[in-house]
Amino acid sequence: MEKLDIAKIYQDIKSWDKKPVTVAGWVRSVRDMKNFGFCDLNDGTSFKGAQIVLDAKMKGYDRVSKLNAGSSIICHGRVVATPNAKQPFEIHADEVEVVSATDESYPLQKKGHSVEFLREQAYLRPRTNLFNAVYRVRSEAAFALHQFFNNQGFVYVQAPILTSSDCEGAGELFKVSTQDIYSGKKLKPEDELFGKSVYLSPSCQLEGEAFALAMGKIYTFGPSFRAENSNTIKHANEFWHIEPEMAFYELKEDMDTMEAMIKYVINYLFEKCPEELKFFDSFVEKGLIAKLTNVKDSQFARVSYTDAIKTLEKNNANFEYKVSWGCDIQTEHEKYLTEVVYKKPVFVYDYPKEIKAFYMKLNSDNKTVKATDLLVPGIGELCGASEREENYDVLLNRIHELKLNEKDYWWYLNLRKFGSVKHSGFGMGFDRFVMYVTGVSNIRDVLPFPRTPKNCEF
Amino acid sequence: MEKLDIAKIYQDIKSWDKKPVTVAGWVRSVRDMKNFGFCDLNDGTSFKGAQIVLDAKMKGYDRVSKLNAGSSIICHGRVVATPNAKQPFEIHADEVEVVSATDESYPLQKKGHSVEFLREQAYLRPRTNLFNAVYRVRSEAAFALHQFFNNQGFVYVQAPILTSSDCEGAGELFKVSTQDIYSGKKLKPEDELFGKSVYLSPSCQLEGEAFALAMGKIYTFGPSFRAENSNTIKHANEFWHIEPEMAFYELKEDMDTMEAMIKYVINYLFEKCPEELKFFDSFVEKGLIAKLTNVKDSQFARVSYTDAIKTLEKNNANFEYKVSWGCDIQTEHEKYLTEVVYKKPVFVYDYPKEIKAFYMKLNSDNKTVKATDLLVPGIGELCGASEREENYDVLLNRIHELKLNEKDYWWYLNLRKFGSVKHSGFGMGFDRFVMYVTGVSNIRDVLPFPRTPKNCEF
Repeated sequence: MEKLDIAKIYQDIKSWDKKPVTVAGWVRSVRDMKNFGFCDLNDGTSFKGAQIVLDAKMKGYDRVSKLNAGSSIICHGRVVATPNAKQPFEIHADEVEVVSATDESYPLQKKGHSVEFLREQAYLRPRTNLFNAVYRVRSEAAFALHQFFNNQGFVYVQAPILTSSDCEGAGELFKVSTQDIYSGKKLKPEDELFGKSVYLSPSCQLEGEAFALAMGKIYTFGPSFRAENSNTIKHANEFWHIEPEMAFYELKEDMDTMEAMIKYVINYLFEKCPEELKFFDSFVEKGLIAKLTNVKDSQFARVSYTDAIKTLEKNNANFEYKVSWGCDIQTEHEKYLTEVVYKKPVFVYDYPKEIKAFYMKLNSDNKTVKATDLLVPGIGELCGASEREENYDVLLNRIHELKLNEKDYWWYLNLRKFGSVKHSGFGMGFDRFVMYVTGVSNIRDVLPFPRTPKNCEF
Repeated sequence: MEKLDIAKIYQDIKSWDKKPVTVAGWVRSVRDMKNFGFCDLNDGTSFKGAQIVLDAKMKGYDRVSKLNAGSSIICHGRVVATPNAKQPFEIHADEVEVVSATDESYPLQKKGHSVEFLREQAYLRPRTNLFNAVYRVRSEAAFALHQFFNNQGFVYVQAPILTSSDCEGAGELFKVSTQDIYSGKKLKPEDELFGKSVYLSPSCQLEGEAFALAMGKIYTFGPSFRAENSNTIKHANEFWHIEPEMAFYELKEDMDTMEAMIKYVINYLFEKCPEELKFFDSFVEKGLIAKLTNVKDSQFARVSYTDAIKTLEKNNANFEYKVSWGCDIQTEHEKYLTEVVYKKPVFVYDYPKEIKAFYMKLNSDNKTVKATDLLVPGIGELCGASEREENYDVLLNRIHELKLNEKDYWWYLNLRKFGSVKHSGFGMGFDRFVMYVTGVSNIRDVLPFPRTPKNCEF
């Protein structure tokens, strides 16, 4: 008989009731009750496993009833719906094949390991409740994003990771080489496979703009890289980045898109991952479901940078970093805006040009740019967005002002020469989004195998 | 009025008939017929653009009727269904705003540029019919893949690109560094951000196995890297790679999954991209639609390596490389099997262990491994697959036989200690798949910005 995913039984218990099935997976625990036994079996396809009921007279009962956690078995039996019990069905086993029994060296013997310990067991941690839930939510959220954009006619562009320019000026970059970099020999960029210096891209925005100015609405979704040596709970050196770009969109439509996207994914998760969200709500972030319900049902606040600063200034006495017009909005200010003032996600828009990137569209005040950050409670900045400067001369002027090398931007500038139009886009760190919807507070615990300073095992 | 995607009008021409609309995009061509004019407008949202009818009495007609290709406009007008004409609707313009007019420096003035020329204009080429079609099909195929796996309960794992091990031995790797690699100073791996040598991963399989042995069925889909200096039409140094991995699957189920996946995506493309496929059939690969129809409606052939060799040996007189049991199957042999013998995709399975990777499951003959390659007409190898060796001792023995470093595989080996089960997986180069379904013969023309030796501009 073919193996049946345990998830399939949960999807329609009634239709499986009394049917013979074969399930296979890993033992979480076994209880020997003398005349019969219970085995909690998880095959990873659903958050909850299946309770297997073992008759003590069953062939091999002695061995099965003594199995350690992590052992793999194949179980042939019958589904029995148990609508009044804690678990909605059981599987009464006719036969259990032990595929591979673990011994006491199995690292996940006992329950309740710390996340720190589990980070050292990254290759095993998806077998735990917490990580099984995180990775399923991550997967479903990624799918929901693809579905959201596909439904709206966005083209998915798989932009390159290897880049020859540090165009965004987004901080330190990883260098990539095909030469023997530890030989001590003097290496030359022109001897590289690509004939020049090459880096890992921190953003696909510029490439995304080229595609938006051809195909209308596009998004990229792939890994991005920052080489900073920063050990925080919000930074990883390799992270997944979603970067949509829309021709003819102004900043308002850009904000509308972000808001609709986030609500879409949250609604999708409520539908597809209710067990996982309940678990996070109980054990990871109390009130998570209420928070996400509020997010999906409320309108996000929208406030200009200038007004946000006025609000923050009134509270300057309580801030470590005092705010005034022109300064960056720091973590404590983000917290105050999102958690005290608005109690929901907030778009802050029209930032001073000095604190934003060169490509952002200058407002007519010549002081601010059409940029917005989406700030959310608990996380801070979730998305960064802007209308892009579409005027050739203004953009060139900004490139000169910031002493960037005009030549590095030849094709990006050309986009402003050849049928330039208004366009906007944004970037969202997907890992941070997963943190937000699961309540998990450390980025190391939402990435499958996180890459942070000193940490590139597995 | 809000801008309407031209694709939306194509989706339901009747309901838009006689309605006022605003469309915006780029001019492909304008014809001035004295009393009126025609403008072929494309906004990138659909393969076909919209024909705009311009009344010569319209304000600004003189300017609009002289616009160059590539100019951007916003057009306010009315949809008029023209069911008996070549194009199914027109838009009768009331007003046209010229957003940005190109001059004669616009590189895509004339029609019919060579793909070689267009590669040098990679930032503009999605504005052409060919590349618009390729990139939309690429996007829809990627979405269909996600949908196929999501529907079947596979978890999408976003595995890391940065890796500290060359585990698959898949050839030359790109090195990644945070140090000043062109300084001529002697650098040490321990001074890197990660404290050791780090590479760009050629495959996420090993990480995928860890997740499959926890969550049942998973897939990865992201960029992979090979540093080879090979200039062929089938190789890029950065390519998109889909790598599913399934616990409790044997090789037969692995083949079933590949076959179902490919048929699913082709069916999806027939539904979502009929115009694009027609275009490829007419201008890129004659007979493409018949080929794909045959693929989706036929059963893929399945032949053992041993039997395939027998078949090939009969034709040895016509091969440059003569085959015999134990040899690799080369391009000319793949061609013969797929295009002459079977005329459809072929799984060749049970290869000699000597020509396959260490992790593939040994058959009881101790000579062959449970590996299969999916060969398709025109492309050759599209997928590589195998059951993975799940026996600790056998795997360790293979690692020693091949003189690999046991320590590099500590966690991979541990997976065989802690609840090991049968499992299988495969890898498909997504770019090659796009080549296959579009008929485009050079991998440089299906990637948004291809990375090949000496080529890392944009």
